[in-house]
Amino acid sequence: MSKHGKLKIIPLGGLGEVGKNMTAYEFDHQILVVDAGIMFPKNDMIGVDYIIPDYEYLRNRADNVIGLVITHGHEDHIGAVHHFLTDIPVPVYATPLTRGLIEVKLARNGATAHAGIHTIEAGKSIELGPFKVEFFHICHSIPDAVGLGITTPAGLVVHMSDFKFDHTPVDGWPTDYGKLAEFAGRGVDLLLSDSTNAERPGWTPSEMIIGPAFDKVFSEAKGRIIVATFASLISRVQQVADAAAKLGRRMALAGPSMIDNVKIARKLGYLDIPDELLIPLDEALHMQDHKVVLMCTGSQGEPSSIVGRLSAGTNRQFDLKTGDTVVLSSHPIPGNEESISKTINRLLRRGAIVINDSIAPIHVSGHASQEELKLLLNLVRPKHFLPIHGELRQLTRHADMAKMVGIPAENVIVVENGQTVELQGKKIKLGERIPGQYIFVDGQSIGEVDEDIMREREQLSRGGIFLIDLSIDKHSGRLLHEPEIITRGFVSPEEAEQLIPEARQRVMEIVNSRGLNNEKDIVSAVKSYLREETNRKPMVFVTLSRA
Amino acid sequence: MSKHGKLKIIPLGGLGEVGKNMTAYEFDHQILVVDAGIMFPKNDMIGVDYIIPDYEYLRNRADNVIGLVITHGHEDHIGAVHHFLTDIPVPVYATPLTRGLIEVKLARNGATAHAGIHTIEAGKSIELGPFKVEFFHICHSIPDAVGLGITTPAGLVVHMSDFKFDHTPVDGWPTDYGKLAEFAGRGVDLLLSDSTNAERPGWTPSEMIIGPAFDKVFSEAKGRIIVATFASLISRVQQVADAAAKLGRRMALAGPSMIDNVKIARKLGYLDIPDELLIPLDEALHMQDHKVVLMCTGSQGEPSSIVGRLSAGTNRQFDLKTGDTVVLSSHPIPGNEESISKTINRLLRRGAIVINDSIAPIHVSGHASQEELKLLLNLVRPKHFLPIHGELRQLTRHADMAKMVGIPAENVIVVENGQTVELQGKKIKLGERIPGQYIFVDGQSIGEVDEDIMREREQLSRGGIFLIDLSIDKHSGRLLHEPEIITRGFVSPEEAEQLIPEARQRVMEIVNSRGLNNEKDIVSAVKSYLREETNRKPMVFVTLSRA
Repeated sequence: MSKHGKLKIIPLGGLGEVGKNMTAYEFDHQILVVDAGIMFPKNDMIGVDYIIPDYEYLRNRADNVIGLVITHGHEDHIGAVHHFLTDIPVPVYATPLTRGLIEVKLARNGATAHAGIHTIEAGKSIELGPFKVEFFHICHSIPDAVGLGITTPAGLVVHMSDFKFDHTPVDGWPTDYGKLAEFAGRGVDLLLSDSTNAERPGWTPSEMIIGPAFDKVFSEAKGRIIVATFASLISRVQQVADAAAKLGRRMALAGPSMIDNVKIARKLGYLDIPDELLIPLDEALHMQDHKVVLMCTGSQGEPSSIVGRLSAGTNRQFDLKTGDTVVLSSHPIPGNEESISKTINRLLRRGAIVINDSIAPIHVSGHASQEELKLLLNLVRPKHFLPIHGELRQLTRHADMAKMVGIPAENVIVVENGQTVELQGKKIKLGERIPGQYIFVDGQSIGEVDEDIMREREQLSRGGIFLIDLSIDKHSGRLLHEPEIITRGFVSPEEAEQLIPEARQRVMEIVNSRGLNNEKDIVSAVKSYLREETNRKPMVFVTLSRA
Repeated sequence: MSKHGKLKIIPLGGLGEVGKNMTAYEFDHQILVVDAGIMFPKNDMIGVDYIIPDYEYLRNRADNVIGLVITHGHEDHIGAVHHFLTDIPVPVYATPLTRGLIEVKLARNGATAHAGIHTIEAGKSIELGPFKVEFFHICHSIPDAVGLGITTPAGLVVHMSDFKFDHTPVDGWPTDYGKLAEFAGRGVDLLLSDSTNAERPGWTPSEMIIGPAFDKVFSEAKGRIIVATFASLISRVQQVADAAAKLGRRMALAGPSMIDNVKIARKLGYLDIPDELLIPLDEALHMQDHKVVLMCTGSQGEPSSIVGRLSAGTNRQFDLKTGDTVVLSSHPIPGNEESISKTINRLLRRGAIVINDSIAPIHVSGHASQEELKLLLNLVRPKHFLPIHGELRQLTRHADMAKMVGIPAENVIVVENGQTVELQGKKIKLGERIPGQYIFVDGQSIGEVDEDIMREREQLSRGGIFLIDLSIDKHSGRLLHEPEIITRGFVSPEEAEQLIPEARQRVMEIVNSRGLNNEKDIVSAVKSYLREETNRKPMVFVTLSRA
C-alpha cells in the first residue's frame, strides 16, 4: 500500500442519477461501499417493480469488499440492502435510526445481515482497511443522517449524501458546519455532493415552515384528516403528530411500512409521540370525524397505496367520506405528475378536500438548493469536485456552480454511472469504465427483465398481437383447414372481423403458392396488409402444426 | 324562441380538462361551437397519436350546428378542425392569423372548409341565429387571440379562452380591459374562464422578460444556436428573430410545420422578420457556426421532433455539434418531464450547452395566474361563474377564488366534460349529461382504439405473451406431438427454456386426462405455474389444430 496509491471512486446505480443509490471507494484492492438503495421505475419501464444498481464489479470482487456504510434510512439508500448482503455479506455501518430501518427491511424480506450491523454515530469514526471514515451530522428529511469524511492514503474525500442546510430542523440538530470547516482546514482533496436540487435557485425552506401550515390546515378541517407521505419521512410524522396534539385530534397509522417505521423510530427515541396520541386504526375509524388524523402512504399517487386505493374506492379497511381533508405531503417526483393529478381529481370527485404543496406549504424539499450548494463548496473548499445524485442535467449545473465559486474547471469532473474516477498524487482523472447500468426487479425475479424484454413489451403494447395458426398436412404440405386467427390489443372485435377474411386469404395464397417454409413471407404479407388497412403494426406470429 | 329560453352550455373534450378543446352553446335547437382542438396523449395511452373530443352530441344534431368560432390558432384549439368539418360542415369564424393557421392545417390534411371560413376581428361582432358574438382582443402566447361576449335571449355570457393579462406583449396589443368593463356594465350572467394556471400564485410574467434573456444567451453562445419551441408559438419566433438580428446572426427554420406557420404569419403581417434575416436551412448549415440561429420543434422532448432526433443522433438534415447551444423555449407540459430530461441528458452527452427555463427566463406561460384570474373576475363581475380549461384540481381552485372575490358559492359551478349547464331565467343549474369522453386517433383510424383495446395492450405490455400451440389428432383426440411454445416480452430466452418443459408437461397432463375441451383449464394451469415460478402474469393463449 503506497502512500501515493490510487483511490478509485465508483459511482453506481440510480438510473441516470449518478451514484444515487450506491458509490464505492477502492484502494489497494479493498473496497468500501456507501449506500445500497433502490430507484422506482420510470413511466416507460413497464412491469418493473423497482430498480437496483448493477454492482457486478463489486460482486466479482466480493472478497475485497470490506464494509457497507449507510448515510441515512430512505429507500433510495437502504432499499437494496437485502439484495446486496445476499450477494456480498459484509458488515453494515449505520446510525441508530438508520440501523433500525434497515433491520425492519431485512426482517420484511426474510434476510439477515450475517456479518452484523454496527452502530455508528455522528462525531465518531471507524477504521476499515485503508479507510478512516469520520461521520458527521447532516440535515435531511429524516433524522440521523450523516456525511462522511473518508481519509485514505491518496487523500481526504468528503462524501455528502442527500442533505440540506436547515437551521431549524424538526429534531433541532443542524448540519455540523464545524466539521466541514475542520475538513477544509485539513485540506479536502475531493468533494462529492448531492445535486438533486442543483437547478433550484435560492435556499430550500426549513422544515420549520411546515408546522404552522399543518396547524392552519388542521384547524380548518371539519371532518377527518388523512395525511399521505412517504413511510420513511420520519420527520413529517413528528410534525403531523405535533399538529394533531395541538388541535386535540388522535392519530392513527395505516399501512405496514408506516407502522413499522414509526414503531422503530419511537423505540429509538427519534419520534416524540405520547402513547395516548397514537391509537390503532380500528379505534380511529370509530371515533368522531373531527377527532382523528390518519397517516398513510400514497402521496405520489401510487395506485396500490392507501391514498391511491381511497381515490379509486378500492381500499379495504376504510373508505373516503365527503368532507375528508386529504393532505398530500410531498412534492411530485419527476414522472409522477400525471398519476398524482389523476389521484387528486378522483379524490375531489369523491367529495374530499385536497391539500397539496401548491395550496399550502405542507411539504419542503429535503435537498439543498443552489445557495446551499455554493455554501458547501465554500465551506469545504475542496481541491477537486465530483457532483453526484443527479442526472447529467443537474450535475452539469452543479459543476457550473463549482467553477463559479472558484474551483478550476480542470478540477471539476462530471461522469455517469460506471465511469470510475481516480485520485492519485493529489490529481484526479477518469479511470476505467465498468458496468454502470441498473437491474430491474420484477415480481420475484431480479435482473431477468432486460432491455430486450422491455422492448418486446413495448412493441406488444403499441400494436397488440395478431396470431395465425396453420394446420398442415405433413404428407401433402397443404393446409388442412383455413388459418385460425386470434388478435389482442390490436383493433376492436368488429374491426378484426372485417380484416380477418382478407388476411386469411393472403396467408393461404402464400402457403399454396410458395409452400410452407415461408413463415417470414407470411408475417410480412400480413403485416403490410394490416398496415395498409389500419396504419398499425401489431406483432404478427405464425404457429405451424403438422399432422 | 322565448325571451326566457334556455341556454345550454356544453363543455367537451380535452381529456380531464373541461371544455379545453371544444365548448358548445345551444339555444332553441341552434348550436354555436367554440374551438375544435386536440390533446396529446398521456403516458399510459400507448400507441395513440392524439385525442379529439367526442362530439357525438353535435354530430347527432349536425343540422342544428350553425357555426364554429375559433378563439386562437394553437393546436389545442384548431387541431381537430379538419375532423370536425368533415362531420359537420359549417362556416368557420376566425381572426386573420387564426384563419391562416387553420388553412395551413386543412391543406396539410387534404381537407376543405366547404362552408367557408369567415374572417372576424377583435372589436367587431357577428350574429348567428340567436347568438350575437362580440369579439375582443386578449393576450396569449400567440397573436390575434380573442375572447367572446355571447349575447343570447337567456343572458350575456363571457367566454375567456386561453389568456393572460400581459401589459407588454410582443405585439404591443394588450387585452381589451375596456370591453370587459363594458360587459360588466351591461351585466354578465355567466363567465367561463381559463383555469390552466389556477394553482399558480401571483401574476404570470410578461413576454417582455424573454427578450433580454434571449439577448444574454445569444451573446454568450460561441457556436450555433438551436432554439426549440412549439411551431404555433408565433410570438416566440418574433423574439428569436429580434435577438438574432441584434447579435448579427441569420435565422433558419427547420421542420415543415414551423416553416408553414411562419410563412403565413409573415404574409399576414403578424411577424416582422426582414427577408435578409431569414435564410434557408441549407444555407445556414454552410455558414460559420457563430453566424446562425436555427429554430425548430422539440422543446417537449418529443422523440420524433428535430431536437428529439438531434439528441438521439438520428436527424437527417444535420447533426448536433459540440459547442452548439440548444435553447428549449417552453415549460414541460405535465407528463413530459421524463422525456424532456432524457433529451436534455442526451444533448449534454453529445457536447451541447443546454438552456432551459430553469437556467434563464427564455419561456413564460401563456396563461393567467391567480392574481390575473381574480382581476378578471372583478373586472367582469359575473353573476355566475363556470371555470373551464383545467382538470378538476385546477377548476376547484379557480372556483375557490371566485368565491373569495365575492361570487356567492351557489352561483359557482364546477362540472366535468359532458355535464351540461343551463342558464335560464337568470339562474344557472346542471343540465343533462351527454357523452363527454374523447376519441383516440391512432394512425389513420379514428376512435377505433377504445378503452378495452388499451387495457389489452397494457396487459400485454406488463407481462408479455406465452403461446401454446397444440396439434391434435382429430380421430383419437390425442396430442400429435408435444405442445409448441412461443414467448415474447415475458422472460429472457434462457429463463424461458427452463420454464417451457414443465409448462409443456402440465399442458399434456390436462389434455391427456381431461381431453381437449379444456382450453380454460390449460390456460389457468399454465398461468398459475408461471406465476409461481416468476411472479409474473403473461397473457396465455392456446391455439388448437386438429388434423
